Amino acid sequence: MDANLIPNVSVDCVVFGFDLNTLNVLLVERQMEFEGKAYHDLKLPGDLVRWDEDIDHAASRILYDLSGLKNIYLKQYHSFGAVNRLRGEVRDLVWLRSIDHPEERVITVAYFSLLNLTDNTSNQYILQANARWIPVSSLPRLAFDHSDIVMKALENLRDDIKQKPLAFELLPSKFTLSQLQKLYEVVIGTSYDKRNFRKKINQVNYVVPINEKQTNVPHKPARLFMFSRDIYEKTRKDSFDFSV
Amino acid sequence: MDANLIPNVSVDCVVFGFDLNTLNVLLVERQMEFEGKAYHDLKLPGDLVRWDEDIDHAASRILYDLSGLKNIYLKQYHSFGAVNRLRGEVRDLVWLRSIDHPEERVITVAYFSLLNLTDNTSNQYILQANARWIPVSSLPRLAFDHSDIVMKALENLRDDIKQKPLAFELLPSKFTLSQLQKLYEVVIGTSYDKRNFRKKINQVNYVVPINEKQTNVPHKPARLFMFSRDIYEKTRKDSFDFSV
Repeated sequence: MDANLIPNVSVDCVVFGFDLNTLNVLLVERQMEFEGKAYHDLKLPGDLVRWDEDIDHAASRILYDLSGLKNIYLKQYHSFGAVNRLRGEVRDLVWLRSIDHPEERVITVAYFSLLNLTDNTSNQYILQANARWIPVSSLPRLAFDHSDIVMKALENLRDDIKQKPLAFELLPSKFTLSQLQKLYEVVIGTSYDKRNFRKKINQVNYVVPINEKQTNVPHKPARLFMFSRDIYEKTRKDSFDFSV
Repeated sequence: MDANLIPNVSVDCVVFGFDLNTLNVLLVERQMEFEGKAYHDLKLPGDLVRWDEDIDHAASRILYDLSGLKNIYLKQYHSFGAVNRLRGEVRDLVWLRSIDHPEERVITVAYFSLLNLTDNTSNQYILQANARWIPVSSLPRLAFDHSDIVMKALENLRDDIKQKPLAFELLPSKFTLSQLQKLYEVVIGTSYDKRNFRKKINQVNYVVPINEKQTNVPHKPARLFMFSRDIYEKTRKDSFDFSV
């Protein structure tokens, strides 16, 4: 090992998308020839950081190239820097060589991003042809250490959604309380009593009922709500919750 | 700019220490000649990541070299990768050249660490001669972007201490409720009503009163408490707190 070698730096993005029912993650199909046969599996969207770009900019660039979207929620949450993180499987090395990527050491800075998959406005993205939405609950084994990177993103999302208004990045701008409850249940991986959940939400002044109901639903249409960031910013407190 | 240049990677550590009164951060004095005169200011402890070490290991190594301590609380919380982050001031460049450090681009992975400065056991560290404990409330401007790195660590500590049992890393193993309250007030930067604070703590089953009182205090000795990690692990819930 040459002491003067410098680890490469990359950025990987875990894009979560919610469709009112399932939490999904956006993955990219990796195709190669392996052991004489066509082989494909899934990896996170990512790229090396360019010499002249900030790491936050690299993350925005990767998301834009993948989806055509700008200005979506994006949070850096962890960097992964184990020495052998790219060298878990022979197929990982084969693939790195096929795309002329440094196969030795790469430290990656990971970001997660939140997208609602129902709102008309944000529905108008165009995915790269090799991109796939895969439910978090049925993820296959991913390339490299990318399964670990997704799991850590999910942990961070779970922590954050308990104390920050992230839910509203994953919901359409107008939503029902059942949809809000479903989102919390899917992200946190639990279920809540409907009455208790509503009692809790009723005490939250930044989730505001509006004078509209659902349309085109087979059941009795439910009242719609909106999130008020103004009210949230003005009323947040430095409270803390020992019970978590 | 050469497209093949690779950013260096470093690790910086923000070590917080609490002495039952003040929250402090551990900084290293940087000495150099600048504009013909001796000049000194403060920076975070940090170092380049070695080719053959994991980034978590680099953080442990830096802390051990600084203090002789192992196995203290250490959390990676953010990476800083703006292109010009080392080039804010002329004196920063002068110093980098004096220690033969790459002066161009370095992406740094930041960790924060928690230390109680009162317990007999953890008091037995030996600091490097150029290390200083400085109160967070009176930090001078630090080298490079290190002021930003400390502020972001403080934000992370504030978020985390509201929902994880981090307070007990900063307190001696036996503590009074006044000491616990003081810690929350100092970290979060607010003050709590004593009665309400105690009411809240009384509902927390992992903060356990023990059959001991303070000794050698000028006032009426207060009851001591301990943190039970066992009880915490067994009773934590997936609750969430909309009110934060």
